[in-house]
Amino acid sequence: MTCCQHNHQETTIDSNSPPSGAPVAGADLVSEQQTAAGRSIEHTSFDIIDAEIGSHAYSTEQWPIVRRMIHASADFELNGLTEFHPSAVSAGLAALAETAEHRGSRPLIADVGMILAGLSSPRLHCFGLHPHQFIADADVIAEAQAQGSTRAVLAMRKARSLGLLDDALVGIGNAPTALIELVRLIEQEQVRPALVIGMPVGFVAAAESKALLADLDVVPWIIVRGRKGGSPLVVAAIHALLALADAERPQIGQPL
Amino acid sequence: MTCCQHNHQETTIDSNSPPSGAPVAGADLVSEQQTAAGRSIEHTSFDIIDAEIGSHAYSTEQWPIVRRMIHASADFELNGLTEFHPSAVSAGLAALAETAEHRGSRPLIADVGMILAGLSSPRLHCFGLHPHQFIADADVIAEAQAQGSTRAVLAMRKARSLGLLDDALVGIGNAPTALIELVRLIEQEQVRPALVIGMPVGFVAAAESKALLADLDVVPWIIVRGRKGGSPLVVAAIHALLALADAERPQIGQPL
Repeated sequence: MTCCQHNHQETTIDSNSPPSGAPVAGADLVSEQQTAAGRSIEHTSFDIIDAEIGSHAYSTEQWPIVRRMIHASADFELNGLTEFHPSAVSAGLAALAETAEHRGSRPLIADVGMILAGLSSPRLHCFGLHPHQFIADADVIAEAQAQGSTRAVLAMRKARSLGLLDDALVGIGNAPTALIELVRLIEQEQVRPALVIGMPVGFVAAAESKALLADLDVVPWIIVRGRKGGSPLVVAAIHALLALADAERPQIGQPL
Repeated sequence: MTCCQHNHQETTIDSNSPPSGAPVAGADLVSEQQTAAGRSIEHTSFDIIDAEIGSHAYSTEQWPIVRRMIHASADFELNGLTEFHPSAVSAGLAALAETAEHRGSRPLIADVGMILAGLSSPRLHCFGLHPHQFIADADVIAEAQAQGSTRAVLAMRKARSLGLLDDALVGIGNAPTALIELVRLIEQEQVRPALVIGMPVGFVAAAESKALLADLDVVPWIIVRGRKGGSPLVVAAIHALLALADAERPQIGQPL
């Protein structure tokens, strides 16, 4: 096992992960943080989901992502509500492979801090993913109030102004207004993220925001159709994507 | 409006909140961080939930907690799955009032960092709540591996060994093993948290862990029965409790 790999199965840590920036004793902790007991529970969980799911219409590469989202929520409605742009998984994997092969870096933009807290910071580092979120920045809050807008909208604009949206992985798990603004930036300002995981939750504009994203073809996306969503689902989708990258290209899993 | 108050309605920030430790310009940001646009969306969401909920069996003080949990998940099954020890809300409010009146402090123990990231750090500070989580600590990981246990179990034991569980608010949104260990500490070692919000999610022991908690009478609890749960639900329950405390005792909302 290498820095970024667990055991080439679905063994990433999910919201059990350390918060971003949590102290770790060394890079080998990436594969060490999840205990054997934790791995066993996870594998049993996946077996239960596979046994109970009945049928699904997902591809071999899409299903591990949906399964991990069900694992994080115990919500079987995600079988069906989760939808993929035809090239979403391949585009996400290609982006991860490209970054790793060039020992480069790629922004990972989240709408809220809960997503970054749920991801394994050293694991992101192995993939050259640099996490950012701006929703609590003083300038974002001040500007949102001045404009009568939401912090989520201004946070997306800040990411845009810093040049961090192009080629980024973007995960939105809370704020529909963040996703609506991102779609506007894609359509009107030619912003081009590598992959958008659009899963805001709620009763005002959440379903509509995801429908807007799903109408796009210029940027690949993964969504949860309708009102449901949330940070743990975005975390699960990203961790599943990293596990797929591990499995597909073992050479990626070398320390950067 | 004071430091801890928004407007005596359900206007706390939820997972839109800044991550714990996020930079804030000053204490007045506690009431300033949520924009008018954000508040409007939140109120509309609550109105939609009230219009669609049909009937429910919750008390006047319980319903705002369940409603905020539905707001955070768009899952109406929480109407019914959410259960309260008879004195859960009153005990939680009494604990918050006592801490505030004495300008004291009280631990808030979470099983995972996502919960702390979803809470408003300055708002917790106003209530004298000191957040802790230990799941990513190097000693916790090492000990879990040595014992063949989970990090979540060892994290609870670390909180116990530091004397942080008695009188604490405890929120568990991810790990059933953390909740099972907490119940053991309550039953066998006379640990006495002020309130346990037990909402781990998943397919292995999650339902069982919450059933164990719900069998206790010596410690008040709020649970989501069955497999469902998650960090956003714990965050929502805590924010709703803080909003109730604001509404009930306006004098609490003074800067400490």
